[in-house]
Amino acid sequence: MMQQLYFHRDSKRGVDGTYNWLMDEVKELGEALKMNDKKALEDEFADVIAWLASLANITNVDLEKAALNKYDNACPKCKHSPCQCTF
Amino acid sequence: MMQQLYFHRDSKRGVDGTYNWLMDEVKELGEALKMNDKKALEDEFADVIAWLASLANITNVDLEKAALNKYDNACPKCKHSPCQCTF
Repeated sequence: MMQQLYFHRDSKRGVDGTYNWLMDEVKELGEALKMNDKKALEDEFADVIAWLASLANITNVDLEKAALNKYDNACPKCKHSPCQCTF
Repeated sequence: MMQQLYFHRDSKRGVDGTYNWLMDEVKELGEALKMNDKKALEDEFADVIAWLASLANITNVDLEKAALNKYDNACPKCKHSPCQCTF
């Protein structure tokens, strides 16, 4: 869906500009975590995942596939579920 | 899946510590974007979405629902698909 909505604009903006937007959204999420406004918090989570998807689209990464390749119902470090890492 | 794997550890770490981990992963993604290693890039995208999900879990936000509430097959600003915002 993000590809359909935004790929043209994301491509024109480019990787560096899109990464900077993602970083700004992560900072806004940090601010929202300090407030007591559930709707605002949900909006910021939505923006971070949206910009992450935008960045994945223009760098030709399948975000869902990348996530499931690494996190496949077990912790990639200790191989257990739930994670039993001791550090 | 992230809830099953990591909720116990994420809860003990807390919101601030988990946000800081997310920020570190976003910075690592920024570094990976400068290199020419597709596997490393995919791994960093996986880590960012994983830590974002961890943070959502411990703040009681449904990440998928939050994303689809805001990005519902149309740009939340201009209401078009593809987005036709002019700024």
